[in-house]
Amino acid sequence: MTELGRLYGLGIGPGDPELLTLKAHRILTSVPVIAYPTLENGKVLARAIVADFIRPDQIEIPMPLPFSVERSSQPYYDIAAENLAKHLSAGQDVAVLCEGEPMLYGSFMYLFQRLAGRFPTEVVPGISSTMASAAMLGVPITFHDDVLSIVPATLDAVTLRDRLAGVDAAVIIKLGRHFAKVRTILDELGLLDRALYIERATQPNHGLLPLPKSIQQTFPTGL
Amino acid sequence: MTELGRLYGLGIGPGDPELLTLKAHRILTSVPVIAYPTLENGKVLARAIVADFIRPDQIEIPMPLPFSVERSSQPYYDIAAENLAKHLSAGQDVAVLCEGEPMLYGSFMYLFQRLAGRFPTEVVPGISSTMASAAMLGVPITFHDDVLSIVPATLDAVTLRDRLAGVDAAVIIKLGRHFAKVRTILDELGLLDRALYIERATQPNHGLLPLPKSIQQTFPTGL
Repeated sequence: MTELGRLYGLGIGPGDPELLTLKAHRILTSVPVIAYPTLENGKVLARAIVADFIRPDQIEIPMPLPFSVERSSQPYYDIAAENLAKHLSAGQDVAVLCEGEPMLYGSFMYLFQRLAGRFPTEVVPGISSTMASAAMLGVPITFHDDVLSIVPATLDAVTLRDRLAGVDAAVIIKLGRHFAKVRTILDELGLLDRALYIERATQPNHGLLPLPKSIQQTFPTGL
Repeated sequence: MTELGRLYGLGIGPGDPELLTLKAHRILTSVPVIAYPTLENGKVLARAIVADFIRPDQIEIPMPLPFSVERSSQPYYDIAAENLAKHLSAGQDVAVLCEGEPMLYGSFMYLFQRLAGRFPTEVVPGISSTMASAAMLGVPITFHDDVLSIVPATLDAVTLRDRLAGVDAAVIIKLGRHFAKVRTILDELGLLDRALYIERATQPNHGLLPLPKSIQQTFPTGL
């Protein structure tokens, strides 16, 4: 009987290929099969981050996903999981590339839910963009007994204001087209002077600026 | 005139040496000077994590710190900063080892505050124990627009209860001798069945267990 392959959820960090861990690099360069999400809008950041490490003899499995991760994306994960299961059943180890940290807002969790009960599975933690952003900004996030809140800007305005009121420290993610809403709320809460903006942290085309100056700027992407 | 040395705050992750990033490994193995905190209780985890990567020709600077990071620790940071400044002024690059992520509850922030204005300084992000714990437990932390709260158990019981009430997801850190307090609060909030405990994540002597069973257990250390 063939031994089952091992499924890896491989955290590959926020964008700089040097922010892969030694472990992620070892696994990435030794597995026969590499899988990664591809979005309908053509974005394939995960593969681009590690492009220089992938060899021609490794099998690549692009996994098409809808741009918006809503309920309707579940059939896509069903298909992707079955595709990976074929390789795992045949004894091939499979590494799924995960931008940032797999367990934090990552699409790998949907594959994990479908496959971890059937195949040996290991999650390799990665550098989250929330942490890399603080490093690039040169701003300590939390001291002593500060509470850190990681808050998606996709929340409705009332909930978002509630979650940001009285925080010690917050990292607001998934900004995208929610920038104006977030800026208004931070202004109302008197937090605007403490806010800093960074986009595409650790990628070559990253940008930083203090938030108060940014109202006249254009922000093509969120964190 | 001698060019100034570069100060690195080097995130080295939660314990497994393979969770250093490629970047941290490159810098660690190329700088002439390596500094790390040593606590009065003899704990020197940071150096132990990377012990196999340090060469005999590299200068090591242990930085004594009091066990409890309170106001009284500031004179220790003054001394450590001046010690590092001598090497940096002489043109030597200095890497300060930081367990986990330097910008998250890290002692490097106190050196950063003292030295970043005088010397070129770079923070290299590391894997936070909060992320590594989720990977080891095999538990996705956040989906969609969940808010994640990272909450130190060192907070007083009233504040701690307030910060944990109604959270989508929380990672409670700095457990140590606050375990009973945390357990009681989670029980009161009806969160106990969702809680998982992990200690020394990614270290060889790590431990995992569901929290409800743990009341009869002994917990020598927190997260």
